[in-house]
Amino acid sequence: MPADAEALKRLVGEAAAELVENDMVVGLGTGSTANCLIDSLGERVRNGLRFIGIPTSKRSEERARALGITIEGFDRHDRIDLCIDGADEIARGSLHLVKGLGGALLREKIVAAASDRMVVVADESKLVDHLGTHAPVPVEISSFGWESTVRQLAQLGARPTPRRDRDGVLFVTDGGNMIVDCAFAPIEDPPTLEASIRAIVGVFECGLFISRAECALVAGPDGVVRIDRG
Amino acid sequence: MPADAEALKRLVGEAAAELVENDMVVGLGTGSTANCLIDSLGERVRNGLRFIGIPTSKRSEERARALGITIEGFDRHDRIDLCIDGADEIARGSLHLVKGLGGALLREKIVAAASDRMVVVADESKLVDHLGTHAPVPVEISSFGWESTVRQLAQLGARPTPRRDRDGVLFVTDGGNMIVDCAFAPIEDPPTLEASIRAIVGVFECGLFISRAECALVAGPDGVVRIDRG
Repeated sequence: MPADAEALKRLVGEAAAELVENDMVVGLGTGSTANCLIDSLGERVRNGLRFIGIPTSKRSEERARALGITIEGFDRHDRIDLCIDGADEIARGSLHLVKGLGGALLREKIVAAASDRMVVVADESKLVDHLGTHAPVPVEISSFGWESTVRQLAQLGARPTPRRDRDGVLFVTDGGNMIVDCAFAPIEDPPTLEASIRAIVGVFECGLFISRAECALVAGPDGVVRIDRG
Repeated sequence: MPADAEALKRLVGEAAAELVENDMVVGLGTGSTANCLIDSLGERVRNGLRFIGIPTSKRSEERARALGITIEGFDRHDRIDLCIDGADEIARGSLHLVKGLGGALLREKIVAAASDRMVVVADESKLVDHLGTHAPVPVEISSFGWESTVRQLAQLGARPTPRRDRDGVLFVTDGGNMIVDCAFAPIEDPPTLEASIRAIVGVFECGLFISRAECALVAGPDGVVRIDRG
């Protein structure tokens, strides 16, 4: 079995692509694992699969279009049959997620919320007992008043760091907003924390995905394992 | 006593300007009544008042600057001493508000949330027994996925109308987002409705201001009356 990270991502991307059936409307995630999914879907489209993709970022949209995948939007579709996306951390049992290190968390969450089913794809390094173990929680906030919003996030116990690009310039999302990466100690109660973060005026969305994933496809040395929500 | 609407706005703007003291940090609202406040504050500045204004819109910022009011931002100030803003509806007793018909609701709410005290200024036509009687509730949402977000607002019982300019083009806020005006029947439980609206993924903020105003200055034929929260 392949052990290096890239090979694991390809493996789980292939497995997830098998979940897509003709005429489905499919939410396409963002990130390196989602890229492998999109590549595998492109191969299936070359072999005759027909489905509609709703991407969660401009990057994923461009990648999917280049592979011949049909892209449409919410103007054409009320609901999404299936959303497949990566995660930065997956909590064993609950399958609560931390997502958004790639900067697309708002679109990812809008697509997940509009989906009948969400499947999360990852390599096994993303499985944790408690969210917040390795990954900060990204929070998308208004650029106006961001200093005030960051102070309120700190009051929740976070060490908040506004995200910047390599040149030190504040990162701007596809929607024109800012991201603050909030390091917490391991999170005991993710649903309550999500509610507290979202209650702050100036917060648009947070990278905690609570009870959204119905199952996880996780690649490890023994292949791809399906984990259902406990 | 003056009876026409413009005169009432000037009257209450003058009364509210008297609340500002030297060295305060003051949130400056948006809209026709807030404009009268800003004009009165400009006159007081010409007569020697010194304070810092944090405006809730580009329009109010430009108006205040032109009158010689010092403008600063959240980079310089953690807290705001006093925020003075108009409202589209004021509920008698609770002083819950509907705000944002002017399109600045997100910034108005961020400024209100950072303020130690909020005073709302209006003419008496804005007083209602139940919010939602005359005014729709503006909701600021993500442009991405807006069709899906609008459907979810409709499921809360609203008749949602995406705001457009005179040419029919979708209105864009200072932050680059969309506004949906949500007509409800008179709202029995504004706090619960606010929570339900804010829980929708894709909603950034809603124009219900719950327990934010400490008092209202309301102008009518008998002059300006101060109403404290019941």
